[in-house]
Amino acid sequence: MLRVNLGRLKRDLLELGAIGRTPEGGVSRPSWSDADMEARRWLLERIAAAGLEARVDAAGNIFGRWQPGRPVVMVGSHIDSVPNGGIFDGPLGVLAGLECLRRIREEGIRLRHPLELVAFTDEEGAFGGFFGSYAFTGVLKAGDIPSIRDSKGLRIVDAMARHGMDAMRAPEACRNPAEIRAYVELHIEQGPVLEAQRIPIGIVEAIVGIRRYGVTFRGRADHAGTTPMKDRKDALLGAADLILRGRELVLALGTEASRVTVGIIQVKPAVGNIVPAEATLTYELREQSGELLRSLAEKSRALATEIASARGLEVSIQTILEIDPVPAAEEVKAAILAAAEELGLTYLRLPAMAGHDAQVVGRAAKAGMIFVPSRDGRSHSPLEFTADEDVEQGANVLLLTLLRLAAG
Amino acid sequence: MLRVNLGRLKRDLLELGAIGRTPEGGVSRPSWSDADMEARRWLLERIAAAGLEARVDAAGNIFGRWQPGRPVVMVGSHIDSVPNGGIFDGPLGVLAGLECLRRIREEGIRLRHPLELVAFTDEEGAFGGFFGSYAFTGVLKAGDIPSIRDSKGLRIVDAMARHGMDAMRAPEACRNPAEIRAYVELHIEQGPVLEAQRIPIGIVEAIVGIRRYGVTFRGRADHAGTTPMKDRKDALLGAADLILRGRELVLALGTEASRVTVGIIQVKPAVGNIVPAEATLTYELREQSGELLRSLAEKSRALATEIASARGLEVSIQTILEIDPVPAAEEVKAAILAAAEELGLTYLRLPAMAGHDAQVVGRAAKAGMIFVPSRDGRSHSPLEFTADEDVEQGANVLLLTLLRLAAG
Repeated sequence: MLRVNLGRLKRDLLELGAIGRTPEGGVSRPSWSDADMEARRWLLERIAAAGLEARVDAAGNIFGRWQPGRPVVMVGSHIDSVPNGGIFDGPLGVLAGLECLRRIREEGIRLRHPLELVAFTDEEGAFGGFFGSYAFTGVLKAGDIPSIRDSKGLRIVDAMARHGMDAMRAPEACRNPAEIRAYVELHIEQGPVLEAQRIPIGIVEAIVGIRRYGVTFRGRADHAGTTPMKDRKDALLGAADLILRGRELVLALGTEASRVTVGIIQVKPAVGNIVPAEATLTYELREQSGELLRSLAEKSRALATEIASARGLEVSIQTILEIDPVPAAEEVKAAILAAAEELGLTYLRLPAMAGHDAQVVGRAAKAGMIFVPSRDGRSHSPLEFTADEDVEQGANVLLLTLLRLAAG
Repeated sequence: MLRVNLGRLKRDLLELGAIGRTPEGGVSRPSWSDADMEARRWLLERIAAAGLEARVDAAGNIFGRWQPGRPVVMVGSHIDSVPNGGIFDGPLGVLAGLECLRRIREEGIRLRHPLELVAFTDEEGAFGGFFGSYAFTGVLKAGDIPSIRDSKGLRIVDAMARHGMDAMRAPEACRNPAEIRAYVELHIEQGPVLEAQRIPIGIVEAIVGIRRYGVTFRGRADHAGTTPMKDRKDALLGAADLILRGRELVLALGTEASRVTVGIIQVKPAVGNIVPAEATLTYELREQSGELLRSLAEKSRALATEIASARGLEVSIQTILEIDPVPAAEEVKAAILAAAEELGLTYLRLPAMAGHDAQVVGRAAKAGMIFVPSRDGRSHSPLEFTADEDVEQGANVLLLTLLRLAAG
């Protein structure tokens, strides 16, 4: 039976993992950073070296094609990373996909459908997230592009222009869904479930929905000494309230799989002896059920408004990310299951709690995901780790899954 | 009777107020910024033009001397500002002092004690606050200087080196307290009391004590989707708790004049889909009673420790500012009172709720402060305003106070 070359795949993972290396031993490759650009060049070279047809689309998505024709079976993930993240989140799916295509080409296997590798732009959200897969699936609208910025205020238009690309043309990356037979993404679980149950393969049932809001409370800048406590309009008090009470709300009304996270908070003017006039935070909800997600989002927004009103503040809420839960395609799940059984590997059906490009692609085409264990469930951290054996087994399941989908 | 020239004083206030002007109509002159340097050069020219002996000491404090000898009667304040602050906070004391010395020199008045104008470095805290008055009174220790930084991490050593000054030599600015007969500072109230009671002159009884801490909660960076709520160590939850419960603590145990303010908060890694591993905030207490201030500080620190422990976080607390309340000198208060009565002005004894250089100088020498009304109590804001009549009356009280202290 056909198998991947683990040594070659590992070398690729470590080479890519060395690009954007941080002092803490992690990697920082936010989309369109210098490190991301170096990683892009590296990947294009690897694709060409594998004898695949390399291509970059208008959104910066990178492709490696084996044989022409349509509809195509796609495999991939992303190569950008969060700041100081790990080396597996994203690259595993891209490089295992590359290894699968290399092996299939080396063996000269004839398939009914062509294969195509993809690395999507900005999955992790330096510029809000899913820029590449949104463009690829026609969700990205030209009118929204000028306002897409990173956390420092840099516009994606300017970030891409630095590298000779016109972000306004990104919608041209849209692919006709009829040309996509299936999309498969191998990814680390980023959670503790597979490791705890000693199961090597996860078959993703559904990918979590996400709502991320930018919430800004506005009060008044006042002197920290001369302004009596009762006369203040302290924007930070509203933010602190929402952080604590939003959590209580989700714990009370959500399921065990519901999540709420405030990852960013900034105040203005940010001076030790001035009462904050403005406090802005990101408020992110995740949930598998679309109905529950909508309900938690509505109640959270109402809570922010209630808090602002009680504290004499103004509040504005901006939607940063809005992704509905997406079930995996039955046909792709069946192919993964058959591949795992063919390899004699145990598997578990489970939800994906992180956002993935498969979720975006899955709304336009048949998509599915294979999970492999993450040590201690750690991810988005230098401590992210998946053992060689798990990498190999996951990549082999991916290989057999692709063969099944491309043959049928 | 001798009076200040209001027109000349106003022109000085407006000229200095134009340096570092912001689009919102305020001024931004943080210490050692380009705007601060321009203001320093302007003030040195004004001092020289007034026929005073201009001098800059090793801490960057600016002096203007009228007649040699000792002990000296000092008058002054500061010319640095908070970001987007007003044009009166600091400059009023320096420029009214300058106007007083000009008038005395013009009239050829013979005094027993010489007069000296001073503008202290970094009262507002770009680099922690009171750098100049700490150095002047011998409180600043050379060993602490290398670690003094602004909010962006710039060391004061590097900030001063840019302007050809060696911050390590700042302790040489220390003046023998025996050479200082008294220090008088005219300042806007920055609070609502004088305006509300329609009283033109405030005689400061005591200057508030301040404790400012940098509190850092440390938890663990985790993926915002895959990490169950119960498994998180979210540093921001500790910070939010302290913001709300610290306020409750001070409202419950403090007086109406007690203050607690969190003006700055920062999280790391500050990414929307990562649980904050670290949250750092400034926690500032103000109170007139030294005993109550110490008690509030101890209970706040204990609260931070209790919160960290309850949430599985680490906490570290760094002291940024520690100023005990300072009563004004009886002799200076008496001179101010006599000056106000001589001018037929009503006055009110009140505390100063903001930190002032007079507080630092007051621990080494006899010091006192004169307050004038602030419209709506606003300060540290472009809305800061004091009417011409109040400026004139305050400056005249300052003038007669200096004459009394220098004659006696």
